[in-house]
Amino acid sequence: MNEMVKRQLEHRTIREFKNESMPTEILEQLLEVARRTASSTGMQASSIIRVRKPEIKKKISKVCKQEYVARAPELLIFIVDLYRNYRIAQEKNCFEESIRDMDRFFSAFTDACITAQNVVNAAEAMDLGVVYLGSIQNDPLEICNILKLPKLTFPVVGLGINYPNQNPQLKPRMSMEFRVFEDEYTSLDNYLENFKDYDQEMRTYYDLRDANRRVDCFSDQVVTGLVNIKPKRQEILNFIWKQGFDLNIREDKE
Amino acid sequence: MNEMVKRQLEHRTIREFKNESMPTEILEQLLEVARRTASSTGMQASSIIRVRKPEIKKKISKVCKQEYVARAPELLIFIVDLYRNYRIAQEKNCFEESIRDMDRFFSAFTDACITAQNVVNAAEAMDLGVVYLGSIQNDPLEICNILKLPKLTFPVVGLGINYPNQNPQLKPRMSMEFRVFEDEYTSLDNYLENFKDYDQEMRTYYDLRDANRRVDCFSDQVVTGLVNIKPKRQEILNFIWKQGFDLNIREDKE
Repeated sequence: MNEMVKRQLEHRTIREFKNESMPTEILEQLLEVARRTASSTGMQASSIIRVRKPEIKKKISKVCKQEYVARAPELLIFIVDLYRNYRIAQEKNCFEESIRDMDRFFSAFTDACITAQNVVNAAEAMDLGVVYLGSIQNDPLEICNILKLPKLTFPVVGLGINYPNQNPQLKPRMSMEFRVFEDEYTSLDNYLENFKDYDQEMRTYYDLRDANRRVDCFSDQVVTGLVNIKPKRQEILNFIWKQGFDLNIREDKE
Repeated sequence: MNEMVKRQLEHRTIREFKNESMPTEILEQLLEVARRTASSTGMQASSIIRVRKPEIKKKISKVCKQEYVARAPELLIFIVDLYRNYRIAQEKNCFEESIRDMDRFFSAFTDACITAQNVVNAAEAMDLGVVYLGSIQNDPLEICNILKLPKLTFPVVGLGINYPNQNPQLKPRMSMEFRVFEDEYTSLDNYLENFKDYDQEMRTYYDLRDANRRVDCFSDQVVTGLVNIKPKRQEILNFIWKQGFDLNIREDKE
């Protein structure tokens, strides 16, 4: 099997890193990989904030409610960035309101995500470990304040990166027979029956974040996740609007 | 330099593929890589539709307005999929409306994007070429109809994959000095002045899709993109709502 694919199949989240930081040329290579990532219509409407100051890392870790974020040797925040092209357009005397359209937001959001994963793959290929920080969505507006993000930008996802100082177990995943469909979406008559083996497998998994107890089975995790509502997270469209995007629901009149 | 990073730095969009299709075990490895991709809170709320029937490929290529989509030997559509977990929760007698919340939509959207890029990296590591199809967003509701996507799902991005039958030029990208900021967002006083070299470089790039003319410089492309409005694309929030998600803008009352 291809060496890279082997590595990808061994992906685990790394939350504890060695103290030695990566050489500058490795970081530069990661950012060059980010640069070469595919981009919707070539607009390159995403950016990266490299967080270096310990006090800023600490503020972000509070939003994430994860203290290890403050200790991440390398911390990158990937953002939607339509502000740069907005300014370029203005200098060209173009003041189109369409820069605020949500389809452009989603294209830029996609760009930011695939850039993050491209960096993840480069990092893991070079023996680094990563942790995705979706938890910056606990309060995206506070992240905007902390990183002084201007209008027409939005934080998407964070990455902690460095050499791993732990070796977690591979996390059980549902079989792809439940996630890949041919030509059309196919639902099951009875999900719980089909997920029995996976539910059982999940019970044998030890999460290093809480080594003293086994995790719930997957179907219980789904229920817990739905009951456990985080009010600020539910506000995400409100925050996107506050950053200057146009939430009007247009209906095509043709 | 690491072999994988070298490949990532050579990423080009491939639109023309050889006729011979990839071996089944290679496709299986790509899907196994998708399975091992990081997932927000482990919910695995994204799925893949593998499009095989020529008539369905043709319908999708009409939405994309790109005839080569109908000829893509392997065509994968990555989707937000909260429907599976909705059904699992219901079988557990959990009927929480929170499954419709937009923060869950965005987490699943992120999952779908990073899964697509993980597959891209595996494909390119195995000498395959890929084309991202953001153009399915020209009419996401039509994509839902074509692929019979149920409520609480949404098409995110497509990928055409196979062995390349073309060797395009590397596309010029802006320097990362304009896209990576330290600790806080930093804007420039004069973007056009700073983008002069990049604008010039872009003029030397030949897009294989239209080999007879040079492309516009980047800053002109930004303006053209903003003027060129696609009404159906602007409707994206409306389509997300029609798929069952809750667009209510909540304000945290605490």
